[in-house]
Amino acid sequence: MALVTLQQIEVAASRIGATCLRTPVLPLVASAERCDASPLWVKAECLQPTGAFKLRGATNAVSQLSDEQRGRGVVTHSSGNHAQAVAFAAASAGVRARVVMPEDSAKVKIEATRRAGADVVLVPVRDRASACADIAARTGAEFIGPYDDPRVIAGQGTVGLEIVDQIPNVQVVLVPVSGGGLISGVAAAVKQRSPRTVVIGVEPELAGDLAAGFTAGERQEWPTDLTARTVADGLRVPSVGVLNWEHISAYVDDVVTVSEQAILAAMGQIVRRCRIVVEPSGATAAAAWIEHADRLPSGSTVAIASGGNVDPETLAAVLRTGE
Amino acid sequence: MALVTLQQIEVAASRIGATCLRTPVLPLVASAERCDASPLWVKAECLQPTGAFKLRGATNAVSQLSDEQRGRGVVTHSSGNHAQAVAFAAASAGVRARVVMPEDSAKVKIEATRRAGADVVLVPVRDRASACADIAARTGAEFIGPYDDPRVIAGQGTVGLEIVDQIPNVQVVLVPVSGGGLISGVAAAVKQRSPRTVVIGVEPELAGDLAAGFTAGERQEWPTDLTARTVADGLRVPSVGVLNWEHISAYVDDVVTVSEQAILAAMGQIVRRCRIVVEPSGATAAAAWIEHADRLPSGSTVAIASGGNVDPETLAAVLRTGE
Repeated sequence: MALVTLQQIEVAASRIGATCLRTPVLPLVASAERCDASPLWVKAECLQPTGAFKLRGATNAVSQLSDEQRGRGVVTHSSGNHAQAVAFAAASAGVRARVVMPEDSAKVKIEATRRAGADVVLVPVRDRASACADIAARTGAEFIGPYDDPRVIAGQGTVGLEIVDQIPNVQVVLVPVSGGGLISGVAAAVKQRSPRTVVIGVEPELAGDLAAGFTAGERQEWPTDLTARTVADGLRVPSVGVLNWEHISAYVDDVVTVSEQAILAAMGQIVRRCRIVVEPSGATAAAAWIEHADRLPSGSTVAIASGGNVDPETLAAVLRTGE
Repeated sequence: MALVTLQQIEVAASRIGATCLRTPVLPLVASAERCDASPLWVKAECLQPTGAFKLRGATNAVSQLSDEQRGRGVVTHSSGNHAQAVAFAAASAGVRARVVMPEDSAKVKIEATRRAGADVVLVPVRDRASACADIAARTGAEFIGPYDDPRVIAGQGTVGLEIVDQIPNVQVVLVPVSGGGLISGVAAAVKQRSPRTVVIGVEPELAGDLAAGFTAGERQEWPTDLTARTVADGLRVPSVGVLNWEHISAYVDDVVTVSEQAILAAMGQIVRRCRIVVEPSGATAAAAWIEHADRLPSGSTVAIASGGNVDPETLAAVLRTGE
C-alpha cells in the first residue's frame, strides 16, 4: 500500500487554508525565559471552527471531488468530531453532506452536525456502516472515512508541517491515537521534514490497542467494551486502520499509554495555563509529558491538543478539582 | 501631545514577535458557510503567554531601553495583567523588574508575577504609586506605566495591525476600555490602515466613565467605589489616561456600555463556542455584539478578547449557568 507522500501533504496544506485555522502552539508552562524556551508546547487543534483537527482531513478530501462527485455529495458515519468536520467541510465547499449517526448519539452532537449543514440520518448503532453503504450505493455519494483514507491522512498531516515550521528545533512530537489518521499524517510529515524529531503515539491505558500491537509488531484489535472504559471518548476506536498501521510502522518511534488520572490532570492544566478548552482526548498527548517525563527524550516537545468538544459540566468538574 | 504614528506601531510589531503571539481570530458562530463568513470574530488575546494583550505594550517598552537603562531595570505598579506582562517582558529581555503590588492582591496574582520573574514589593494599596516612584528615584529603574505611555500604546496597537491583516474586509472593531491603552493603539492602527472601519469602545455600564465622557466631549473620572461594582475586574480604572483621551478623541467612532448579564453571557458563549478561556473583562467587547446587535453597523465584526486570567471557580460557575 502506498504511503502518503510529503508532497501530498504540502498540497493538502495549500487546499485547506481558507477553511481550516493554522492553529497556534501555546506554552504549557510560561517561564521566566523567553516563551520559545518552554519545555512543552501545546498545538491547539481545539481552536478549529468545528473544535477538532478532523476538519483538515475532511476539507482535503472534499476539495478533491470532481464536479460530478460534487453534484452527488458526500456521506460518512460518525457520532463524533468527524461528523461535524465532514458537514462543515462540505458546506464550505457548497456540497451536500449526509451523516449517519447512531440514534442514541448525544443530542448536542446531532444538533451541531445539523448546524454545520449536514443531513443527519439516525439509525440503530449496529446499522451505521450498512446504512452509510446503502446511501452511497443509492445516491452515488462519495464516502469520506474517518481515518483509513489517504486524502484524510494527508489533510491531518498538515498539523505536522505546521509544527516543524512553528518550532523549528522540535525534538519530540506527542500525538493522541484512536483510528490513527492524525498520527499517520503527522508522522509522515514530521519524519520527512525533520528526520531527527521523535514521533510518539499516546493512548489511554484503557484503550491501548496500538501500544500492544506496536510491541508485538502486529496490528491488534481490542473489544469495544474494553476501549469504552476510558474517559477519552474520542480514542475508543478498537484498532487503527490498515493504511494507518502502515504509516505507523514506517514512521512512528514509540507508543506510550497514560492513566485516566493523568488525562484529567492534563486537561485541567491545559485549560488553566494555555487558556484553551480541551476534551479528555485532546489532553491525552500532554498527559504523557506529565506522566512519563523521565521516559521521553528531552528537548522542545509539542503535544497535539486534538479537540475541544467537551460538555460544560465535565469541564466545570475538572476545573473544580484543582491542579 | 503627539499621537502614536502608524510607523511606531509597525516598528513595535517587528520588536515584539519573539515574545508575543500573533493571536488567531476565531469565529464565535461556526456557520454552515465558510468560516470567514462568520458575523463575529473573536481576537484571542487571552492566548498570550501571560494571558492578556498587556504583554505587547510591556515588551515594546522594554525593547526600547538603552543599555544603561537595561542595567538599572524597570519598575511598575499593578495588581493585574500589567504586572505579569512587565515581569515576563523584562525576564525575556534579561532585565530586572520590580513590581509594586497592593498587599491585599490575590495570592495567585502575586505568585504569577513572581513566577514570571519579577521582584514583587507588597505595600498598602494607597502607597503603591508613591512606593513605585520611590523605587524609580532610588534605583534609576525605568517606570513602565500601564496605559498612559506612547511605547505601551504603540505595542497594544499591534493588535489592530493584525486584525486588519487577518480580516481584510473588517467593518467594525469592538475594543474593551479601562485605562485606554488598548483602544488608543488599536484605533490608531485600524483608522490609519483601514479608514472606513468603525472602531467602538465598550465599557461595563457600571464603569462607564469613557462613555459618559465621550458624550460630554470631556474626559471624566468615576469614583472607584462605582467602577468597583462591575464583575469585569480588569475594567475598573476610574478614567482613561490623558494621552489615551487624545487618541480616543482622534480615532474612536463611538463608545457603548453593556450590562453585567451580557458580560457573563458573552463569557459563556466564547468559552463554549471558541473554546478559549476569557475573563469577564475579556468578554466585554463581544457582549456589545450580543446586547446591541441592532445599534452596531453591520458587516464583519471583530471583538477583542483582551485576557483570560479568571479563577477556575468563576469559570466553572459561568459554565454551569447554560447558554
